[in-house]
Formats: sequence, structure tokens, C-alpha cells
Amino acid sequence: MTVLSRIHGPEDLRALPAAELPALAAEIREFLVESVSRTGGHLGPNLGVVELTLALHRVFESPRDTIVFDTGHQSYVHKLLTGRHDFTGLRGKGGVSGYPSRRESPHDVVENSHASTALSWAYGIANGRVVAGERSRYTVAVIGDGALTGGMAWEALNNIAADKDLPLVVVVNDNERSYAPTRGGLADHLATLRTTRGYERFLEWGKTRLNRTPVVGGAMYEALHGVKKGLKDIVAPQGMFEDLGIKYLGPVDGHDEQAVEAALRRARAFGGPVLVHVLTQKGRGYEPAVNDAADQFHGIGVINPETGLPLEIAGRSWTDEFSDELVRIGAERRDVVAITAAMMMPVGLQPFADAYPRRTFDVGIAEQHATTMAAGLAYAGMHPIVAIYATFLNRAFDQLLMDCALHRAGVTFVLDRAGITGPDGASHHGMWDMSIAAMVPGLRLAAPRDSAQVPLALRAAVDIADGPSVIRFPKGATAPPIETFRRVGGVDVLAETTMEPVDVLFVSVGALAPAVLGAAEKVETGGHSVRVVDPVWSLPVSDDLVELARSAGRVVVVEDNGVANGVGTQIREALAAAGVDTPVRLHGIPKEFLDHASRAQLFEQIGLTADAIATATLADLAGTHR
Amino acid sequence: MTVLSRIHGPEDLRALPAAELPALAAEIREFLVESVSRTGGHLGPNLGVVELTLALHRVFESPRDTIVFDTGHQSYVHKLLTGRHDFTGLRGKGGVSGYPSRRESPHDVVENSHASTALSWAYGIANGRVVAGERSRYTVAVIGDGALTGGMAWEALNNIAADKDLPLVVVVNDNERSYAPTRGGLADHLATLRTTRGYERFLEWGKTRLNRTPVVGGAMYEALHGVKKGLKDIVAPQGMFEDLGIKYLGPVDGHDEQAVEAALRRARAFGGPVLVHVLTQKGRGYEPAVNDAADQFHGIGVINPETGLPLEIAGRSWTDEFSDELVRIGAERRDVVAITAAMMMPVGLQPFADAYPRRTFDVGIAEQHATTMAAGLAYAGMHPIVAIYATFLNRAFDQLLMDCALHRAGVTFVLDRAGITGPDGASHHGMWDMSIAAMVPGLRLAAPRDSAQVPLALRAAVDIADGPSVIRFPKGATAPPIETFRRVGGVDVLAETTMEPVDVLFVSVGALAPAVLGAAEKVETGGHSVRVVDPVWSLPVSDDLVELARSAGRVVVVEDNGVANGVGTQIREALAAAGVDTPVRLHGIPKEFLDHASRAQLFEQIGLTADAIATATLADLAGTHR
Repeated sequence: MTVLSRIHGPEDLRALPAAELPALAAEIREFLVESVSRTGGHLGPNLGVVELTLALHRVFESPRDTIVFDTGHQSYVHKLLTGRHDFTGLRGKGGVSGYPSRRESPHDVVENSHASTALSWAYGIANGRVVAGERSRYTVAVIGDGALTGGMAWEALNNIAADKDLPLVVVVNDNERSYAPTRGGLADHLATLRTTRGYERFLEWGKTRLNRTPVVGGAMYEALHGVKKGLKDIVAPQGMFEDLGIKYLGPVDGHDEQAVEAALRRARAFGGPVLVHVLTQKGRGYEPAVNDAADQFHGIGVINPETGLPLEIAGRSWTDEFSDELVRIGAERRDVVAITAAMMMPVGLQPFADAYPRRTFDVGIAEQHATTMAAGLAYAGMHPIVAIYATFLNRAFDQLLMDCALHRAGVTFVLDRAGITGPDGASHHGMWDMSIAAMVPGLRLAAPRDSAQVPLALRAAVDIADGPSVIRFPKGATAPPIETFRRVGGVDVLAETTMEPVDVLFVSVGALAPAVLGAAEKVETGGHSVRVVDPVWSLPVSDDLVELARSAGRVVVVEDNGVANGVGTQIREALAAAGVDTPVRLHGIPKEFLDHASRAQLFEQIGLTADAIATATLADLAGTHR
Repeated sequence: MTVLSRIHGPEDLRALPAAELPALAAEIREFLVESVSRTGGHLGPNLGVVELTLALHRVFESPRDTIVFDTGHQSYVHKLLTGRHDFTGLRGKGGVSGYPSRRESPHDVVENSHASTALSWAYGIANGRVVAGERSRYTVAVIGDGALTGGMAWEALNNIAADKDLPLVVVVNDNERSYAPTRGGLADHLATLRTTRGYERFLEWGKTRLNRTPVVGGAMYEALHGVKKGLKDIVAPQGMFEDLGIKYLGPVDGHDEQAVEAALRRARAFGGPVLVHVLTQKGRGYEPAVNDAADQFHGIGVINPETGLPLEIAGRSWTDEFSDELVRIGAERRDVVAITAAMMMPVGLQPFADAYPRRTFDVGIAEQHATTMAAGLAYAGMHPIVAIYATFLNRAFDQLLMDCALHRAGVTFVLDRAGITGPDGASHHGMWDMSIAAMVPGLRLAAPRDSAQVPLALRAAVDIADGPSVIRFPKGATAPPIETFRRVGGVDVLAETTMEPVDVLFVSVGALAPAVLGAAEKVETGGHSVRVVDPVWSLPVSDDLVELARSAGRVVVVEDNGVANGVGTQIREALAAAGVDTPVRLHGIPKEFLDHASRAQLFEQIGLTADAIATATLADLAGTHR
């Protein structure tokens, strides 16, 4: 019987003799490599936090104490230790989520996978405990060094520092590189702390003893602390966290469970906010991951566990199409610059960065700054490309509106992972970007339908100098190119019945074109004349599209964006403004948070398939509902 | 002839003998007090930056060098020095803007009045200069200590620190309190720097001399700098900016023009990013402002320049109604807590804070943190009220969605200054909040129509425990209460013609009810039956409202929100989903950036008046357009 099989909850872990912990850690790593290589998932980050998570659950008593994981993809070990041992369906429909999930366990708190939120969550929870008279309930936030570059983390630190007796512990999980090599002042400062804090050990003995003597501990600890501060000013820089007024402990070897446990116990005993600096290694204990210079298996698909190599190699992705064209444009246009928010590889900017390092900026997990910085670059005569995931544009709505659009800045946002993403769950779907974009005066948006359209859209976008433009496309492999049958103004006609009038005008926005063409074929087979168009530039709604709608019997809009305020809504509004009363039906992502599942399962579930669209359209045509 | 009248641009200022600067500063202060007390505006902040702005324009050569003002309301002195001497129409239609305006001058860059953006703008501009091979063009960002608490500023600092040779100067205008006493670790740290940096003066002599000897300056300055760093570790804390890797100069007396000039010259000569810490006093030189403990005349209406007292006292404001009711609720519900983002007074939280200090949180200029912290407080059993300006909700869309709504957190957002605000221009209008809210699953929104509805809405909102709720109201004095004629489910009928069927159903969202009632009366006088309803809870659209629309001849929705994706759009969508084909016309704020003008002028301009609504409706009824 393994040690892991005896751990059904944190109380079992706390009862475990320390001597059994190394075996447990080894079993957990073996389990992770074996199961995650079968399902895909965030392998590297979880291999890195095995000992840290063990220590957290031995020192703090979840759920009485609250442990908040920033970004959440490093919660697999936490899941195992809180009784969830079945990972066979990890990230799949009905299976265990890849992130904390309140539905799964009372030990899970924050489901949002967007970075840099944990300190604010923890600050709120800790203050709630105090207001409720539950000061003895501790709150712990676990945040990566990369996530500390996000502005929210700073806003929270500034508040935490002011609350001298809040029962709050911040664990900085420093793997020296978050998604990719992190640059910036903070990264340098963490490096300084890593290398200059050896002197802490000299003081270890005294502090440990004093903490064991609670009666006199308080005052004497303070006295010693004073001495230490004096020493520190000579021996080492004080450190920005202590400059801010937050007690700093560390750095601690994050793979020495007993050392982490000791640090956390001291932090807990301190009686006020403490930042514990823990050094970990992403992919720890799994050679293929540790040796992966790019990102230590940050997030992986299904792999061979022995070699770490992917079992299936997909075709060219949407990202590849963008990536290659941008490099070509970069050679022609010296004013084109690119910005990523700690996602150089995933958004396809690495080739551009290799070719034009001085024209590429990795700003950290900082979409707000990235967007406003882009407005600044545009002011100085550049044309910036801000390449981020669609879901993260949410973070920069105000800056898109007030810095880019108000100032008519020629900035192009390239939104990857738009639409349904699948296994990463509710907070990773790119289902708000087109709705946000629709509110921004002067903004133009293209959702390319296939690999051939990506470069065309990108080239058109970098020529837009008087306002923001957006190109958005989904994750995964591109669909084969879909020929343009003919053009009506800027609108591409992809297919049409030869007879007029058109019973149904299908408006296909972006990558769902194959499903729309499939639906149209079924409707045509049902005896109706159809026309399928791609507006190419979906926002603003073009007059050409309005006129096509005017002459149609009905309009069906299909988009892989939230149906609330998406392109379909804008088309309906444009028709109303033009006095066109053609009935319009919208197909998109419903206004709700979608659980994790495969993309295909989710498309099926929400009716974004050829069959579902055809069925609804035929029912409308039959007048059974509208 | 005054000195000021001879300054038509920065080159005149640079040619001015230093001996004339005190007289110029005095003239500028006199001008500001006299003109701003006539027009209203940001008096205190501008009185505080007179010498600083003089120094900026003497050391840097705008517009070849770029000066970016954060928040922008402290740009009046800059306007005077760049040739804009006519302040008679300040913030009025056609008059000079209260913020930088590119249309007014090539010296103006950033028009966005939302805080904490300047460092990102400057970082972008400075990098653009470098990429363009224009390294000799300097970029200067002027940012307040309060704005440094915003997360964007941190994101930018982290990047600035990593670019060791960027021609960029950050001026921190530290008045020790931004909008109101600022709390937080940063505030404490700035205070430490203010009190411990006297030793800088010892080193002044040597550095000044070395800077005057350019040939050997570089290396020798570096040597001295090394000595100084060694000294500093003993004499004073290093300071978080230098921990981050940004050269720090200061603190400098911001009212000693020559001292500021010297510091800026040194910063300019340094050849890389430098942070210059300047101490200023808000309201400097104007007794009534300096003595105003609350906010030193941060923003004022029309006042008597002798006494500083307002000339007209408005009635009770929307803010007052919220403020008073919240205190009453606070006495009954110990779980109700309140959060402000550095706006305690303007959003009406001061009375609650006085009564329940431990349940009130001023987080700094940090709407993202405020929103996520609220989700944390809700998790711990509290019901938080997040009281901010409507326009600043833009900053927290992602957190509203992902932290509050996804986690079904019972958090109430109280949005003040919703709708048209007027003289503060494009970035202060609260015209996006209802569109944002409409995208958020599970969110409920009420826009009270009058003073009596504010407490009712607030009480209903604090009882919503399973998701976010929003109450939004405009600035200024409330309208007199408008009686409910009868109720249809949750919908208030405010007026109706006795005969059926109803030709026009007017849906009045929020504070425009008097205009809607006026329009309805005119339409009724024109011989049509009307019904005016207030949905009370505007989001989500209620079934009651849909049924009322079904039986009407046409629907007219009026709201003081952007017409793009606002409540009217949601009503149109709800009708379409329910198969109701009653024509709908929307009246709201057009999808464009509106210039500053009075609220009345703007309502007139965009057709949000009884006359304009009636005229459009009558035209629709006559079939002349639809």
C-alpha cells in the first residue's frame, strides 16, 4: 500500500511522521507524470510545488485556514492531498478540474485562472475573518514570481503592508522564471534576494529558540529583529518587501519540505503579514521537464511519459500563421514592434523576437501596461502588435478604450485562444473580446476564418494608423482555406444558392465557417435558398452586410464569442438603425460560465455545430419558433 | 506688463532670467485662483505644481522632449506656459479642456484622466524614440504619489527598471496625500524617504561639480555613485525604487524652483531611467485651499476667490442618499463592509467610515484589487459595497467577471457619476458601466430614478448573496421623487394613458425619468396612447418588461449609458429571444468620445432631452423613419 493511498485529507497528512514525507513526495511525482502524460495538463508547475504543498497542509488547517492558489494550475498536489485521487478524467468533461473548484472540495477557493489575483483574495478573506472575530483563522496566498509582476499584486501588497496584524501569509513560489524567462526590476530584485540572504542562517538559531519560548518570545523576538535589521543594512540590501513594511522570510529551499515547514510555522507565529520566499524548480524530479529550456512543461498535451514527447503532432496552428507573417512584415516595416505579456512562445512572438529583439517587449503579466505602452509607442511613430490571449483582453478594457481608442492610436491586438478553449475551464474561454471591442469607438476587428485569412487580416491591420484594430483567432490547428466565391464590397461570399431571393443569409464570423457551411448545406438540402458570407471585418458592421441582410428572408449569425453583445448583436443593432426588419437569429456562446470539457464536447453542448445551427434555422423557416 | 503675458511658449520661459521666476510663479497662482474660482476646476493640484512645471519646461524641450502628466488635471500651469492664457471657458463647451488635449496643443499628449497610466505611456514613448533612433529625445512622466498605488504604475516601474539606458525621467509629485490621506505600504515608504534622505545634501556639492565637468563626469560620477551607495546602506534604507533598480533622486522641495531644476538636469544627464521625488503642497499659496483638511480644493465648483466658499449650494445629491442609507444599513447588518479606491469623500463613504472604521477599506487607486478583495470578503461571510465612479469600473471588468460573478460572490457595486458628467470630458463619462454589466452572468443592476429609489435599491442589493449587484446613479442633485402609478410585477408604471392599446411603451432607465415623462406627455398630446415604465432592476431584462413590450405598438428605451450594448440593446435582444417583434428605438449616449461641456449642453447635443425623444418618437409613429 502506498503512502499516498492513505492520505484522504489534510488531517491524514498532518498525522504522518516526517520520515514518510520523502516517500510520499516521490509517489506524488510518479503519479503526476503518469497521469498528466495521459490526459495533458500543467505538469511542470505541479512537479515544482510538491514539497511546498505538503508543508502548507501540514502547517495550516484547511479549510479552517484558507489556502489560495494564484492562477490555480499548480493545485494538483493540493487536490491529491485533499482526497481527490482520480485524475483519469483530468480537465475532461465530468472529470476533475485543472484548477481549484468549489464544487469539488471545501478546500478549494479561487477558480479564476487569471494571474495575480491571489493576494487580493487573501487580503479580503483575512480581513473578513478579522471583522467576523475569527482572527485565529489564517489565510495563505501562494503566488508565483511571475504573477507578482501583475499590477493587482502590487495593489494588494500595498494594502497588506499597511495592516500590521493581519493573519496573512504570502508564499512567493519563485522558480526564477514563470512562463518563460521573466525580465524586469522585480526579477532582478528576487535574484538579489536569492543570492544575498545567506546571512539569514546566522540568525536562524536564535529565532527558532525564541519562537519556542512563547512567554518572552514577543519582546525578545522584536529585540532580535531590531538587531537583525541593523545588521542587514550593512550586510545586504533591505529588500523592497521590507521597505514596503512586509516581514520577509527566506529564501527557503522549496524542495526541502522540513525547511519550508519551519518557515511557514515561523510565518504563522509572527502574528502579522509575512512574505515567505520559496525557491522551487519547475518540473522537479522529471528529467524531460527540467531539461526543457523553453518552459519546463508548463502546460502539455498528451505525451509519452518516458520521453516527454508529444504523442500526436498537430498541423499548423493559427498561431503559426500569425507568427510567420509577422516576421515577414517586420522585415518590411521597421516601425512594427511587438509586445507580449509573459507569453512569448504561446502567442507566437518568439520568431519575431529572435529577428528583431530591440523591437520586442515582454512586459511580464501586465496587460494593462502592455496596452497603454502600445499607445505610447504609437505616439512615437511605431505600429505595435499586442499579442495576448483573448481572455486577457478583459484586463485591459479601460486602457484599450482610454489610451488606444481615445487617442486614435494605431495599435493592433492579436488575440489568440479566442472562442471556446475547452479543458482550461470557465476563465480561459475567449468569449468576451468581441463584445468588449464592440463598445470601443473607432475600433476595427477581423476574425479570420482560415489560415489564408490570418496574414491578410494582419497586413490590413498594420496599415490602420488612426485607431485600434483587433485580429482574433482560436487555439489549435487551422481549418483548410475556404475559397471566396465572390465579393460584395468588403464581404466574402463563401457559398450561395443560385436562385434569388435568399431565404437565409448565414453570417459566419471567424473560425466556425466550416460549421456554418455545413449548416447552410443542410438548409439548402431542405429546399431553401441560402447564402453564406464572411464579413472579414466584423466590427464595425459594414453597410454591405446590412444591404445583404435587407434582401434576405432571414439572417443567421454564427460566432464563437459570447452571444451577449457579440457581433450578432451589433448586426441586429445595425439593421435596426438602418430600418431593416429582416429577422435575425444569433448563435454564439451562451451568457454563462462553462465547465471544462473538450472543445468538441462544448461546441456540441452549446449548439455551435452544423447540425444544431441547421436544425434551429429549419425550425425558424417552418415557423415553429423564431 | 506681467511676466506671464510674455510667455507664449516654453522657449520664452527658458529665455527668462531665473530672477524673474518667483514673480512668474506668483502671477500664475493669482491667475489660477481668480480664473478657476470663476469656472470651477482642479484648483488645489495646479497650485501645487507651479514651480515643478516651470522647472520641467526649462529643463526639457517640449514637444521635442515629451512631458506626460498622469491623470492630467494638474496640467493648467503647463497650458499657461505653452501659450494658452484664455481660461474663461475652462472645461466649458468650446473652451480650454481641464485635461491635456492634443487638439489644443502639440505639447499635450495624454488626454485620459484615469490614474496611473503615465509611466506606461512614457515607457512606450521612450522606447519608440529609441527604436526610431531618436535617443536624444527625453520622455518625462509626472505622476502623483497616490497614482503610484495603481497596479499599472507597478507594471510599468518593473519594466522601466530593466531598461538601464532608456531616456526616461519619472517625477513623483508627492503631496503626501493624493485625493485624501493615502494609506498603504507605499505611503509609509515615501514618508521614510522624506525623513531619512537628508544625507543626500552632503553629496550634492560633489555631484553638481562633476555634472558640470562633462568630459570626466561619466566615470567619476559613477565612482561617486558607488561610494554613495555604500554610504547609503549604512545611513538609510536603500529604498524600494533602487531595490527595483531605478536610480532615485530626492526628495526635492517642489516649491524651490531652482532645486527642482537642478534635480531634473541631473536626472536628464544621468542617461537612464531616474525617479525624481518632489515634495509639493496641494493648494500652495492659497490659504483657503491649504487649510482645507479634507482635500485641499482638489476639484471645486464655482467659488468666491476671497473665502474659498462655494457660491451656490446644491440640494441633496445622489451620493448623499446612498451615504445616509449605507450608515443605517451598517447599524443593522454587521456583515456589511465598504471599499473605496482613494475616493472616500467623493463617493460618500466618509460617514460609514466614521461609524465603522474597521469595516471600511480605502485601498488606494486600485479598482482591480478592490473588486477581487470584495470577492474575498464575501467568501469570508461579508457583504461588501464597492463604491467607485462608474467610469472606473472599466478598470475592474475582469475581476467583476472572474472573481465576483464566477464565484457567485454577493458584492454590491455602487457606481457614482454614472452617465454624462460634463466638464471633465471624454474619460469621465460613466457610459460603459451598464454595457459591461450586461455581459456578466448572474449580475443584477438597478439604476434608481430618484432620491427615494436609492435606499430601496441599496437595501435590495445587500440582500443579494449569490452574485454581484450594481446600483448606478449620476452626479449632482437628485430629481424630486416620482411616484409609482402602479406596478406590473417588478416594473414600476410611472404614467399611462387610460386607453388601450398602448402605442408607445417608454422604458426609462435611471435618472432620465423626468425627460422621459416629458417626452411621453408630448407624444400623448400628439394623440397617441403612451405608458412610461421604470424597470427598477434593469439587468437582467425582466419577463414583465418583455410582456409589456409585447402588447405595445412600439418601445422607446432611454438611458444615460452608451447606446452600444446598453440596457436598450439587452431589451431588444430579450424581445428577439421571446419572439416579440415590437419595434424598439434606443436613446442613449452615442458610441463616440464626447468633448467637455456642461451636462445640459451634452444632453442637448446627443438628443437626451424630452423634446428630442418626443420628436423622434412622433416621427417613428408617423412612419417617416424607423
